[in-house]
Amino acid sequence: MAKKNAKIVGNMLIAQSGGPTVVINQSLIGAVMEAKKHKEIRKIYGALHGIKGILNENLVDLGRESVATLKAVAQTPSSGLGSVRKKPTPEDCAKIFEKLQKYGVRYFFYIGGNDSAETAHIINEEAKKAGYEMHCFHIPKTIDNDLRENDHTPGFASGAKFVAQAFMGDDLDNAALPGVKINVVMGRHAGFLTAASALARTYPGAGPHLIYLPERPFDLEKFPQQVKEVVEKHGRCVVAVSEGISDITGTAIAAAFSKEVDSHGNVQLSGSGALGDALSNLIKTKTDITRVRADTFGYLQRSFPGVVSANDAKEAFAVGREAVKLATSGDVDGSVAIRRKKGRKYQVFFERVELRSVAKETRHMPDEFIAANGCDVTKAFLDYAAPIVGDLPKIGRFKRIQVKK
Amino acid sequence: MAKKNAKIVGNMLIAQSGGPTVVINQSLIGAVMEAKKHKEIRKIYGALHGIKGILNENLVDLGRESVATLKAVAQTPSSGLGSVRKKPTPEDCAKIFEKLQKYGVRYFFYIGGNDSAETAHIINEEAKKAGYEMHCFHIPKTIDNDLRENDHTPGFASGAKFVAQAFMGDDLDNAALPGVKINVVMGRHAGFLTAASALARTYPGAGPHLIYLPERPFDLEKFPQQVKEVVEKHGRCVVAVSEGISDITGTAIAAAFSKEVDSHGNVQLSGSGALGDALSNLIKTKTDITRVRADTFGYLQRSFPGVVSANDAKEAFAVGREAVKLATSGDVDGSVAIRRKKGRKYQVFFERVELRSVAKETRHMPDEFIAANGCDVTKAFLDYAAPIVGDLPKIGRFKRIQVKK
Repeated sequence: MAKKNAKIVGNMLIAQSGGPTVVINQSLIGAVMEAKKHKEIRKIYGALHGIKGILNENLVDLGRESVATLKAVAQTPSSGLGSVRKKPTPEDCAKIFEKLQKYGVRYFFYIGGNDSAETAHIINEEAKKAGYEMHCFHIPKTIDNDLRENDHTPGFASGAKFVAQAFMGDDLDNAALPGVKINVVMGRHAGFLTAASALARTYPGAGPHLIYLPERPFDLEKFPQQVKEVVEKHGRCVVAVSEGISDITGTAIAAAFSKEVDSHGNVQLSGSGALGDALSNLIKTKTDITRVRADTFGYLQRSFPGVVSANDAKEAFAVGREAVKLATSGDVDGSVAIRRKKGRKYQVFFERVELRSVAKETRHMPDEFIAANGCDVTKAFLDYAAPIVGDLPKIGRFKRIQVKK
Repeated sequence: MAKKNAKIVGNMLIAQSGGPTVVINQSLIGAVMEAKKHKEIRKIYGALHGIKGILNENLVDLGRESVATLKAVAQTPSSGLGSVRKKPTPEDCAKIFEKLQKYGVRYFFYIGGNDSAETAHIINEEAKKAGYEMHCFHIPKTIDNDLRENDHTPGFASGAKFVAQAFMGDDLDNAALPGVKINVVMGRHAGFLTAASALARTYPGAGPHLIYLPERPFDLEKFPQQVKEVVEKHGRCVVAVSEGISDITGTAIAAAFSKEVDSHGNVQLSGSGALGDALSNLIKTKTDITRVRADTFGYLQRSFPGVVSANDAKEAFAVGREAVKLATSGDVDGSVAIRRKKGRKYQVFFERVELRSVAKETRHMPDEFIAANGCDVTKAFLDYAAPIVGDLPKIGRFKRIQVKK
């Protein structure tokens, strides 16, 4: 909220948190480049590995990096300052202010998902309680696309592009050597990334033929039957499965195969092929289909250099820049949200929203994006996602004019 | 061998076999485009799904596909005619000739790896025995790069580019959120593709820090210790593991987790995350390292559209074209091999070699490409592979000028 016009002079600190994306550095560099234009911002500090770097006073001077380096880092995947999955305790927060005050930080930016927005929110509330004027902004980032208030989030479009391209190729691979192919896609609670596999369909009969999202209960009894039906129709079946699929009680299917839990209380889903292999074995056991394979796309979805949505890179840079613009416009805090303009042409704009409105809770796929049968997406989803993701490779196929026997 | 000058007039048949690649259609279209120039070639037939399509008389008329379609298919991953893993029996071979004669085929081209070269060789020998003049050519293809006689094989460079890019991003991901990351790469008997992960190293301390190849025995006792040593030095460890790693007795490590066998007698390695997960659990059990993740790159390595080596696309097209040029130059059979010219500049040329010289047996990484410690590659390998693969994305990194505490 704008309280007064006098701009407080001080240092800036920026950090990155949570799972990296291929465009998270665009946001970082967008913020740094903008900060250089504002004389009320003195030093531009980067904390290494998020709040851990603040607590350990492990800071680097981003104001002393060359423009050439900044530009090169912007185009490099993964968090250039390192990341962290630490959730701060109240004691951590007290220490963080001590450090921020020690380093004269008045502008604080935290790039991340809803967990990171929550962290920023807690720090901001602590600052308010302590009567310390700090302009605290969360900068959105998540390939999961599960932040509230946003039409979509930086990182999603590039992750979706990777997933769509992967399915395009893998569907053709499966058409060449038919069988059942299960691909496990990232997404703990939100199915957007898995749903993006549908963008791979460019010809009649193309896969993925079944899409399972965390938003609908996964039925271990029905699944082999649904696969079998597709095989009977198409002679093969490509399946997209979200790593976060859960049964009717809300228990993650993967939980039976992984016990590891992070500091936010989340079960480890990525970095293991267990879910895909279990589903693959289920098909082999419950049907007479013999060629069944499973791949888990894993960390490639969020870190693969060279597969970047042009919109995504531009928007990720913009949210970093906007955060600094807003933070220097008065005594303001919040998060920068991406909104989409109405109309046929794809255009976005940015708005300040309250930190608490994006913190903690996740956004899910709306019902209108999910097909009635629970294992596909709708045209409404494709209309939503296609312009965000942008261009995909063109696929050429033979007419296959049969030679008379 | 050139026996006479009179050119036999007849139809051509081409088919694709084995695991697809992103450039296998380049070879197909290279052959078809060249065939259109030769009037001794009448009809240009494509068999769907390799020799299975010949046996079932499932043929398409490639001569009736438009140039636009041919060009589009050339740039599309996976086998446009479908593929097969069937190894023909002597009875199959007898039937194949019956079919080839029935369709007046005098020019037969089979695109594939060493198993496919063997198939082509058997068919060719049968043709000779039957006194049927057929110009039979194998056209090389394999991401494994394990064909004898060749400097490298079509498909390898693009697979290697995918692997290198994947490791570039994943190494940065691991640097952001440190831990142990194991990536399983394709390659049953030859480690070339796994070795290509070393091309990802663009800064001091970059991963992969350990590279395990099928050419060296894998020691389950030593492995956790080697990982631990890297973690002690770098605070993290990125590992490249070939799916084909075997113990000192030659038994595949993955064999304990997969029992499926194809018609060539090979154990199923791809399409499962079991090996990576087992190695990951081994690290968790034998060391005090807690954050351990494994990804298996799977079929993405051979089918991902958009990640194509420019050299690879060009050379794949050329081997298809050369095969038809050679087959129409006289009564000739064989395989087209890629050779590299001596000198600093990367240049290749093509040579006819005998079918039996590329059939069946695989080529392995030469000793000079493998580091003395058995878990890395040498500069000689990098000098060999880098020009084949070509351009890789540029990585930008901060200087990280520390702020005084």
